[in-house]
Formats: sequence, structure tokens, C-alpha cells
Amino acid sequence: MQEKDEQSSAAKQYKWVGKRPVRPDGVDKVTGRARFGADYNLSGQLWGKALHSPHPHARIIGIDTSRAEALPGVKAVVTAADFPDLPSKATAIGDMVVNLYYFSRNIMAREKVLYEGHPVAAVAATEKSIATAALKLIEVEYEILPHVLDPIDALKPDAPLLHDNLRTMGVKPRPTEPSNMALRLENSRGDMEKGFAEADIIVERELRTKPVHQGYIEPHACVANVQEDGKAELWTTTQGQWVARAYCAHVLGWDISQLRVIPTEIGGGFGGKIPVYEEPVALKLSQKARRPVKMVMNRDEVFRTTGPTSGSVNRIKIGAKNDGTLVAANAEFIFQAGAFPGSPVMNAVTISFAHYTIENQRVVGMDVVSNRPSVSPYRAPGGPIACYAVESVITEVAQKLGMDEIELRLKNGVKEGDTALHGLHYGPIGYLETLEAIKKSDHWNSPIGPNQGRGLATAFWKCLGGQTSVSAALNEDGTLSVNAGTPDIGGVRASLALMAAESMGIDYEKVNPMIGDTGQLGFNFVTAGSRTAYANGVATFKATQSIIKDVCQRAAKIWDIPEDAVIYEDGYVRPASSNAGDQEPMSLADIAGRFASTGGPITSATTTDGAGYGPTFGAHLVDVEVDSETGRVSIVRYTTFADAGTAVHPDYVEGQMQGGATQGIGWALNEEYVYGDDGRMQNPGFLDYRVPVASDLPMIETEIVEVPNPLHPFGVRGVGEISIVPSVGAVANAVRDATGLWFDDLPLSPPNVRKKIAAARAAGEALKI
Amino acid sequence: MQEKDEQSSAAKQYKWVGKRPVRPDGVDKVTGRARFGADYNLSGQLWGKALHSPHPHARIIGIDTSRAEALPGVKAVVTAADFPDLPSKATAIGDMVVNLYYFSRNIMAREKVLYEGHPVAAVAATEKSIATAALKLIEVEYEILPHVLDPIDALKPDAPLLHDNLRTMGVKPRPTEPSNMALRLENSRGDMEKGFAEADIIVERELRTKPVHQGYIEPHACVANVQEDGKAELWTTTQGQWVARAYCAHVLGWDISQLRVIPTEIGGGFGGKIPVYEEPVALKLSQKARRPVKMVMNRDEVFRTTGPTSGSVNRIKIGAKNDGTLVAANAEFIFQAGAFPGSPVMNAVTISFAHYTIENQRVVGMDVVSNRPSVSPYRAPGGPIACYAVESVITEVAQKLGMDEIELRLKNGVKEGDTALHGLHYGPIGYLETLEAIKKSDHWNSPIGPNQGRGLATAFWKCLGGQTSVSAALNEDGTLSVNAGTPDIGGVRASLALMAAESMGIDYEKVNPMIGDTGQLGFNFVTAGSRTAYANGVATFKATQSIIKDVCQRAAKIWDIPEDAVIYEDGYVRPASSNAGDQEPMSLADIAGRFASTGGPITSATTTDGAGYGPTFGAHLVDVEVDSETGRVSIVRYTTFADAGTAVHPDYVEGQMQGGATQGIGWALNEEYVYGDDGRMQNPGFLDYRVPVASDLPMIETEIVEVPNPLHPFGVRGVGEISIVPSVGAVANAVRDATGLWFDDLPLSPPNVRKKIAAARAAGEALKI
Repeated sequence: MQEKDEQSSAAKQYKWVGKRPVRPDGVDKVTGRARFGADYNLSGQLWGKALHSPHPHARIIGIDTSRAEALPGVKAVVTAADFPDLPSKATAIGDMVVNLYYFSRNIMAREKVLYEGHPVAAVAATEKSIATAALKLIEVEYEILPHVLDPIDALKPDAPLLHDNLRTMGVKPRPTEPSNMALRLENSRGDMEKGFAEADIIVERELRTKPVHQGYIEPHACVANVQEDGKAELWTTTQGQWVARAYCAHVLGWDISQLRVIPTEIGGGFGGKIPVYEEPVALKLSQKARRPVKMVMNRDEVFRTTGPTSGSVNRIKIGAKNDGTLVAANAEFIFQAGAFPGSPVMNAVTISFAHYTIENQRVVGMDVVSNRPSVSPYRAPGGPIACYAVESVITEVAQKLGMDEIELRLKNGVKEGDTALHGLHYGPIGYLETLEAIKKSDHWNSPIGPNQGRGLATAFWKCLGGQTSVSAALNEDGTLSVNAGTPDIGGVRASLALMAAESMGIDYEKVNPMIGDTGQLGFNFVTAGSRTAYANGVATFKATQSIIKDVCQRAAKIWDIPEDAVIYEDGYVRPASSNAGDQEPMSLADIAGRFASTGGPITSATTTDGAGYGPTFGAHLVDVEVDSETGRVSIVRYTTFADAGTAVHPDYVEGQMQGGATQGIGWALNEEYVYGDDGRMQNPGFLDYRVPVASDLPMIETEIVEVPNPLHPFGVRGVGEISIVPSVGAVANAVRDATGLWFDDLPLSPPNVRKKIAAARAAGEALKI
Repeated sequence: MQEKDEQSSAAKQYKWVGKRPVRPDGVDKVTGRARFGADYNLSGQLWGKALHSPHPHARIIGIDTSRAEALPGVKAVVTAADFPDLPSKATAIGDMVVNLYYFSRNIMAREKVLYEGHPVAAVAATEKSIATAALKLIEVEYEILPHVLDPIDALKPDAPLLHDNLRTMGVKPRPTEPSNMALRLENSRGDMEKGFAEADIIVERELRTKPVHQGYIEPHACVANVQEDGKAELWTTTQGQWVARAYCAHVLGWDISQLRVIPTEIGGGFGGKIPVYEEPVALKLSQKARRPVKMVMNRDEVFRTTGPTSGSVNRIKIGAKNDGTLVAANAEFIFQAGAFPGSPVMNAVTISFAHYTIENQRVVGMDVVSNRPSVSPYRAPGGPIACYAVESVITEVAQKLGMDEIELRLKNGVKEGDTALHGLHYGPIGYLETLEAIKKSDHWNSPIGPNQGRGLATAFWKCLGGQTSVSAALNEDGTLSVNAGTPDIGGVRASLALMAAESMGIDYEKVNPMIGDTGQLGFNFVTAGSRTAYANGVATFKATQSIIKDVCQRAAKIWDIPEDAVIYEDGYVRPASSNAGDQEPMSLADIAGRFASTGGPITSATTTDGAGYGPTFGAHLVDVEVDSETGRVSIVRYTTFADAGTAVHPDYVEGQMQGGATQGIGWALNEEYVYGDDGRMQNPGFLDYRVPVASDLPMIETEIVEVPNPLHPFGVRGVGEISIVPSVGAVANAVRDATGLWFDDLPLSPPNVRKKIAAARAAGEALKI
């Protein structure tokens, strides 16, 4: 570890930033002492349970809750009739824009159920068993409708329509007829025809991905308490207490100030805990029952009712000259949104070719609804899909050109001064540095064994700034409390404390970083978007600098000298040498000891809109071994590279890189929703929905590239999302390299790989294994 | 209510300040939904119970905890050996100064036990019954020492010494020998000899009071959770989370930033929940057991181990001319501190004659330790005692002079420009206005019935500023969150919301006032000292004005006009008329909707050291009826008058006035600690320690006098303490008036009154009944 610190550029430049103190929440999380969503209980609380649709598509003719309400122990029953019917319009939720007409219908079905698992009612009762029993007494009359699961099927003219009022956005003129295509985006530059005409070779491929779940270990859980005066509290496992507050207030038709949301420790979210699900239901149940209501999903509910990311169909066409210059690129991304509009297809459009300087580009994205759970963000939403599609083809281009694939990427890679298709003008960035790091790596320069293949994929990720508020207070003994509003998923407490200690020139141990609820700070956007260390760092730096300024003012007052004659350094103030005097330096504790007579405590609350965030680049390099008999793909070696800007706490950065790779491996190799013809999910559990476990994986190696973000006080970019983006493509490229076969559909699971190998053998195709 | 509003000067001047919205926590508190200290529970928590000394004074020879530790289910045992032995020195705890040597020994006895109930050890176990059983297995070897309960006895040369190292402070030169007198204060002006020589009459009396308990309904309760990284959380019913944090950190030897204290709803405190008792013990048990630990006192423990206020012996001598001019006043207050120094005798010295312009004054105060529970603050600490003593004599002076007692007080009462003995130079104050209000009152001008008497007492109270931090955040929909750090006892949420609404020009319903924990704000001194509405008002006004300024800046940015060309009014910004333009006004919601692109959320964190607080004056007028057979005193009519400055929420102000009167009635008529010769309390429960209940009392009438404090944005002074100060004296004067007998010792309980009447009858004295 010490050796690594010394290698880090941050560790060289800073005293605290770049260090690796033991993570503060680590032991409590592994010993079970940390309080996650389900660990909160209030006196007198009821248990809430939701009733879910058994049908993938049906009209709700009527709901009779009278028998459930009559069951002893049942204190409240709610249906969509208890919530306002919100109009269809774009509403800002923090830094996102959401249509609450759809969002509220996902919380509780109104006219129709649109997927198996769609909530239609909920019950609060004195015991969980009573609530569950009461659900069986709710009589829902359905008119069953035909359903559609696949996005290509959903676009067919005779496909069942999910929403009568859904007319494709982004197409001019806007269609008058409803459709399952919610959005069509197109972005282009240059002259596509000319570009492809100049190409010596062209590769064109269609690649598919399956919807996959974020796979967080902790199910959704909350406790809601609506007080008698209408003010309410909500404890929930969330990626953003302010976003949860806004969603709930909107869905309930409340003033935002009515609700206080207290985030619990969170056992994974990966985007899936950005939306709310049962939270507004628990609040409404509590309001009706006049008691606290707790709701905890089981795994089955998590799978059937919460958002995976999109499945997709992607068409990529790239043309290159023989010298390796990429001259034209065309992409079409068809993303399945689930039951309501909102797939991350825009991200796919944005990032697809953003790491390449291709003159002629055209990218189209489509957002298509179908009778599946509404998608929610999943770590770098859309990124792994776009990267998988594009990088599969880029690698094939290199092969066709007979060119080293790193050289191809170096030749066409973006650098400072270039501009991406989506308009981002690059400042100092680290794509080429990342490629050079791979070239120099032991992994790249090591041979591979029999039945093994090597895959590489590289990617751009845009990151996010986002509204952020922090506060800091100098305590009576000179220690510092820092209060952030972003749930700690990837180490915000540790990174904030390191940056605050660095900024104040005091010891890390003297800083207590805490996570505040919505009553305590201004708005904070979610812990997501690779923004958390970035934006909190900006706000914390401002807050600590404000505290230093106030400390100097107090010292000036105490010493009766001008403020600019006070020097602050490493937790002490002293008079500037020019101001002779015989004043002894004062510590922060000395200043704090005189709060009562110098104007009161020193605190600071600062905010940022997140401007100044910088893009990241990353690459994954993976060796796989394919068992041609079983079709099983084993990960033999895996190295992740990412430009994190500055790695504030390298352990956490490496953890992010390892975790992203692991999720991508699952996505590429095993994860999929298995549906029957009846539109019902058949594998809603971790035994049948197979995510990688430790024994499936080698130690994942990491190499942090540090090209500091010049717009951040400590150079931070972000690392949470770039860590997953190249993973799926790298694994797919490795399996193709190992087998010599073109795989165009995920997952590369044993049955699928085995089938493809068998078919190739039967057809007499050339195989590497 | 409406009529009252119209009478209020605040209601005339302001839109929200002076209104009486329904209290936000009212229904939850009466229905049992509010979460008090004992309502918090953490997963996996243990129960802690303390072992208390059965002896009033004994040396601890040894403690053997081994049998307790061996009991299955016991997870930790602590004694004083688990806490640092803190040196004897003055340490600032917020705006107080405390000697932690004594304070820590009150938490857990070290060398000696000094009162029955003194904690000597504590146990944490999986069940409360196991913890209780384990206490019986702890073997403490005591060397029993003689004890002393009465302060006069404690000052005798042969009295048992409580502390070997206690040498009287305030006496020069400082004595070298230890004593039970911890402090002797003396304050004087003028020439006492000359003053008394000028007097036509002199009245001199010795008056005694008994220790009385604050009588809060909710016992002390806390849950402590020390995490594996050493950071800790504490939920506790407290009057000040920052003060609790400081006390605990000091007693445990921790950095202050290690601990986060979350205040619960509080079921009364009246000063008694300013110190901590079991909180550091619970934290230490949690640290040792590595589990959360909950401790809840029972009523017996509350009485035996927590602080009542002092018993006292008070000698008052006042001289007056025949024209009613008070020419000289001498007072000596001997206050019993309990086992450790810290009686409120300094307050008695300060306030005694502060409402009178007496030229020649001398006031002496003594703080005396004895083998009783250590006193803690009790609402206007020392105030009711000093007022009782002084106002009993003032009334007698009026009687001797044959002068109306209001006229006597008007003649000698302080007004703007006068200076109190303790140095306070009065600005605009309301003493004479209060007296005039009594003169005009229906009560004063109504006759009294047979066996009835009327009593009046008037008083000064100094109030307090104190360090205070608040924060405010403008929410996305234009509503406002305000975060205060003072537990809501007397309505801080309602008063803050009213002042914030007034300052922002928005509706009260759009403001959500919340109480923050120590992680969220700068230091806040306790909810006490009549300071809460005052100091929070100052800080909230600053915070809202800062938000308005930021709102104007954002508008200026959006409109691209100078900031000073933006006008803010009633929740809207508009361009000043001089800046024509065609900009529509924007609401706070409009501004908030553009946070993401204009710099981030708007928040404000402000602090004050509390400078600018103003003194209050009050008077109680009471009619009693005395049953000469039983000695029972009934309250027939009771009116309280107080100058609150501005009454922000008159219902709460009236509630304070009624509550203060009620406590004083109990103090005067019934409350006392009954001790046996063994130094053990015999009435540690509300059946035997008799506080007034609703059926004992008439509706207590209130008249709020409003002489605004010019140094507060809304004129607030404070009302929590002045409400109790004149109570005891007024009741005593009324009983004297009804009986014609001089009572000099409290309580005026049926046995005591009956005995006095019987003795007077036997002696053939003149009796009014």
C-alpha cells in the first residue's frame, strides 16, 4: 500500500489527498452493526406490503379493498385513487427531468397494469403476516391485454400499445398517432456518404444486450411517519434524500417542505435507488393509518418491480482507411425502456464515439416501451451497451486492417482541443494516457494460454456535476464537522474528510464527515453520475476556505490587527511578521474557545451547481478461458485502467474499478431476465439470476491514471461509472478472441456459448478452440 | 383568541409574528406518537442499568465486578476506572464554565460516594432484567462516613467534609483549609451603614426554602452507539445536544468531533436536562460491548440521582423612609449545592434587588455542598428563591409603611437609564409597565372572600443570549427549511417558523422548522435561559436575509441587471421600476427552479454569540384560601404578568407563564425531599413528592406586557424563566395575607400550615382566619 501511495501523483502533491486511511464504515458494515434501510424501526409502526399485478398487461376494471380493510389488524389500504392523477409534463427533479404522469403510474398502477409486478394496491397492518394475508383479500378485476417484451417487436405496427397518449418525441413533425417509441434522437456531423465512400474497409454489425439488474444486495426498505400536523419523515435506503423527497412530495401532491427524508446506510444502489418505489406508498399508508409504516421489499419484489437497465438492439457501422484513420461511423441504438419512457439511450448517443476523432458521424437513439419493469439508471446508464457495441466493431476494424488495436485507438483517440459529437470541447483529458498505460502494462505484454482470448475495450464517460450543498462547523475543541448530503456509497465520508483535512491543514482524524438529511442542507443531487467526490469536493473546499477566512477575522478581532495581517497555516493563526507584536500563534481550538465573545460559532454552508466537472476515460483488458465442452467462460486475468483525475482515496477508487468490472462481467457472461410466454419472470432470485461472486473472479488489477481536472480544487474527475463502461465490450472481445466466433447477443452464458460453438462446428467454421 | 391577537402589539405590527397557529407537535405529543428519549431503539441494542450508592457518604474501598461480568447476557460492566480522572479546573462548556473534576465524579463515583443514589457502576446486558440482576452481583466495599444534609449544618466547624480539596473561592486570601463552602460572593454599592441610618423603618427576616425537583414528566433516557471506528452516536432527551456532546466527550476523554448527539422530543427539562447523567455511561458501555446501549431511568432514579435545585437559607434586611423610598437593602443567600459545587447562588445575588433603585445595597451569596444529589439548573435558577425572600420583605415593608404595595414598587422600580447592582445599565424595560398592568387588572381590583388572602411578588430576570447557529435552505418549490439546534421545549419550531415567514414575507405554512443534531450546525447552547426564541430569532433573521440577498443575486444574474436593481417583496423578485425592461416578477419557486444553472442551491448558515438579549420583568398576583382545620391552601385565582418583549406566538408565551406559575405553586405549597436520619430519600415518586396537577389549579390568567427589545429584529426578550420567578413569593405573601401569620419556611403544606396555625392559636396570636 505504501508503495502505491508513493506512485500516486496525488500522494506526492498533497498531505492527505491520495492517502488510504481505513474506511470509517468498513468494520460496522461487515459486522452487521451498520444500519441499513430495514434496520430502522419506530415505536408503534405498522408493516406495509404491496399487491402486484400477476399480468404483464391488463386494464384495471375495478379494485375492491373492502374485505382487506375489514381484516382485524389492517389499518389502511391504498390504491391509485389515494394519489393525485398527475398531468403529463416535464418536471425537474434536481438535475433530472421526469414526467410525473408516468412516474406516478409506476408507483401505483392507475388505468392499466403494464408489467408483471406492477403495484396495484398496498396494505398496512400490525403484523407483516396480516398485511400479506390482507393482500389476498383485495379483489382486482382485470381485462387482460396482449403484451410485448422485445423492443423490436414493440415497434411493429401491430404491437400492443402500452400508452394511448404516447407520441414519439424528437421527431418533427411530432406524430399524431400513439406509438411504443417514446423518443427518437439523432445527432450527426460531417458527411456520412462521403465518409463511408472514403473508407477502405467498413465493418457493420448488429449487437444485442439483455436487460440486467443492478444487483444491489440490500432490497428497498423504508419507514414512513406522517405526523398529525401533516409534516412527515421518511427513512429510506436511497441514493439521494432530496431526490426521494421531491419524488414523494410530487407523487403525493405535497409541499416539498412537508417532508424530511433521512437516508440510511445503503447496501448498493448503482442507480437503482435513485427512483422511489414504495416510499410514497408507505407515506400514504402512514397518513391514512396515523401510525408509522415500514415497507421492506423481498428479492422477488426487487426483481419484478424495480428497474433493471435496458435491453438493446444496436447497429454499428464504421469505416476506416488502410492507414487506420476512422473516417465514418454510424450507430443506431434501440433501447427498451420497460413500461414507461426513460431508457438511457441519450447517454448511448452521447458517448458512443466520443473517444474518437471521427470526422463523419451519425448516431440515432430510440427509446421503446414494452411490458417489463420500468428501467432505472444503472451505473453509467447506457454506457456499457454503447461501448460494447462500438468497441466490438472497433476491435474488428483493427483486425481487418491488421493493425494493433491500441495503435488504432491511439491514432484516432481524442485529446485536448478535440470536440465530441455531442459538443463537449475537451480540455486536458486522459484517453491517450490511458492507452499508453495499457501498452506499458504487464498484462498487455504477457502471453495468453491455450483456449484463452484477450479482449480490450476503451471508453469515454461524461460524468456529472449536479447541485450540491455541504456545511462545515468548527467544533469547540478545534475539530471539524463536515456535513454532506449525498449517501455514502463509494466513500464520500472518507474522501470529504481527506479533502477537508487537506484544505484546512489539519489531521484527517480531526474531521468528522457525516451524511445529513433533507432538513439540514440545501438541495443535493444523488450519489451517482460519478459526481459525488467531485461536487462534494468543490463545496467542501469552499466551506473550509470560508471557515479559514472567519478564523482569520476572529484572530484579527482578538489581536486588534487588520484581517490581512493574520496568517493561517496548518490549523494555526499567527500575525504576519510585518506586524511585529508579541502575539503567540493561536490554534483552531483557541479560536473556538472564544466563540462566545467574538460573534458566535464559526460555520459555513456552501453550494455548487456542479459546473467544472471533467470527463473520464477508461479501458478494460481481460483474458478469458473458454471451455468448449460446457461453454463456460472463466475470467483468467482482468486489469482495469481509468483516468480518475486525482484519486482522493485510492483504495476506494480501486474498489470502484474492481466493482464495475465485476458487474460488467456478470452482464456479459450470465445475467438475464428469463420470461415465459405469459410475460412472467421466471428467475427473480439470486440463485437463478446469476451475478458473479468472489469465487468466479480473479483479483481484478487496477491502474489509476491521474490526469487532474483543472477545474476542481484537487483535480477530481470521478470514477464510479467509467469503471463499468468498457467491461462488457472487453469480455465480449475476449470471448471472440478465444473462440474465433462472432457473438452478437448477450449473455455469453454456458448454454449460449456452447450452442454457438456446436453450431460453428456443425457448419465446419474455423474455430480457435 | 382573535380578540387577544388584536390586543397584541406584535399582531398589529407584523403579519406572522404574534399569530397563534396550532402548535405543530401538539397532537403527536398528546396521542403518544411523538418520539421521546425512551422511544428510540436500535437493532441489537443492549440495556444498561446503573448501580447506585445506598449510603449518603462513604469511601469506596473496592468494587468487584467479576460475578456480574460472568452472568450470561452481560456484555459490559463499567466503573469510574473506565473513565479518565479529570483534573480540577474550569472548563468552558458552551456559555457555561464547569469543573469537570466534580462533574465527572457525579457521573460515576470515584474515591467516595457523596449522596444516596450516587452511581458507582453500570452494566449492559441483553435484557433489562439481566442488567438489573447483574447489579446485585457487583460487590462494593464501602467505608461509611458521617453525612450532612443541611447547608447550615454543613458550614459548622465539625461538619463532615465532602471534598478534601475544596477550598472556598471568592474569599481573599483563598483559604488553605478545605471547607464545605465552595464559593462566597459579595456585591455592594453605596454606604450600608448610612443607608440603614436614614431608614424610618427596617424589616429583617430569615427565610428558608427546600430543594425541589424540576418534575419533568419524562425521565432521562438515551441510546448510545459507538461504532467500530470510534465515532459515536447518542440519542438523548436533552436541552442541548451540543452541551451534551461536550460533556460526554470531556468525561470520556474523546475529541468532540467523535460524537454526534441527536436530540429526541423532550418531555420537560426545566434545566434538569442540561447536564448529562447516564449518557457518558451508556457510551462507555457501548464502546466496551461493541453494541448499542439503551439506558432509561425510572422515577426513583430520577429523584435520587439527578439534580433538584438548591435548598436555601436567606437573610433579607431592607430599610425604607416613611415616604416609601427604599434606602438600604442587605441580603445573604446560603444555597445548598448538593454533593458538588454549583448552586445558582450567583443568580440570586444578581437579581435580588435588580428591579429596585436602592442606593445602598449589599448582597452576599454562599455555595455550600452537602450529601444530597448535585443540584442542576431549575428554570430561572435561584430566581424564585431570591424573589421569595426579597418580595416577602418588600410586601412587609409596604405593610409597615401603610402603603399600597404597588405604589411602593412603582416608587422604587427601575426604568430606562437605571443601573442594577450587578452592573446592567437598563435600556427600554418593562417593570413599571408591568406594575401598571397589575393596577389596571380586573384581578387586582376584585375583592377577596373569607379565609382568603392576596399575594403579589414582582421580579427581574436577566435572560441569556448564548451561542446559536441556524441554517436555512430554499427548497425546490420555493418553500423554506429552517434548521435550529435547540430542542423544542417551549415552541422553538413554531416561533422560528413565524419569524422566518415574517422575514421572508411568505406564508407560515411554507416554512418547515426542524431541530438538527450536532452533525448539522455550529454550536448551539441549550434551550434554557429564556434565550431560545431570542437567539434563534437573531440567527434566523440573519439567515433569511442572506437568502433574500442570494435570491436577488440570482434574479440579477438571470435578468442580467445589477443586483441593486432587483426588488424582493413577499416571496417575489421584480426589477426596480427604474429598470424598465419587461421582466415578469419571479417567485421563490421560479428562482429555485433555476438553481441547477445559476450556481446551485441557496442556503445559509448563520451564527450569533447572543449579544443583545434584554432583561424581563414579571409579577404574579394570587388569591389563596386557607382551610384552618386541615392547613390546606387552595389557589383561588392566579394572574401572571410578564414583559416578554414581543410575544412571537402568544399561546406559547401564555403556556410558559401558566407553567411557571404552576411549578412555583408546587414549590411554595407542597414539594420537598423527605430524608430519614440515614440520609436516604423517603419520597422518590410522584405519589409522595406532590407536584400540582390540573385539578389543584384554577385557570391561570395571563397578561403579556410587550416592551420590545430594541436589539432584537422582532423585539423578543424571553419568557421561559420570568414566568416562575415571582411565583413562590406571591403564594407565600398570599398565605401570610390570608392567615395573618409570618411563614418563613417552605413548603406551606397542610401539615406545616396547620402546625403554625395551631401554635399561633395556642399562643393567643392574632389570626385572620
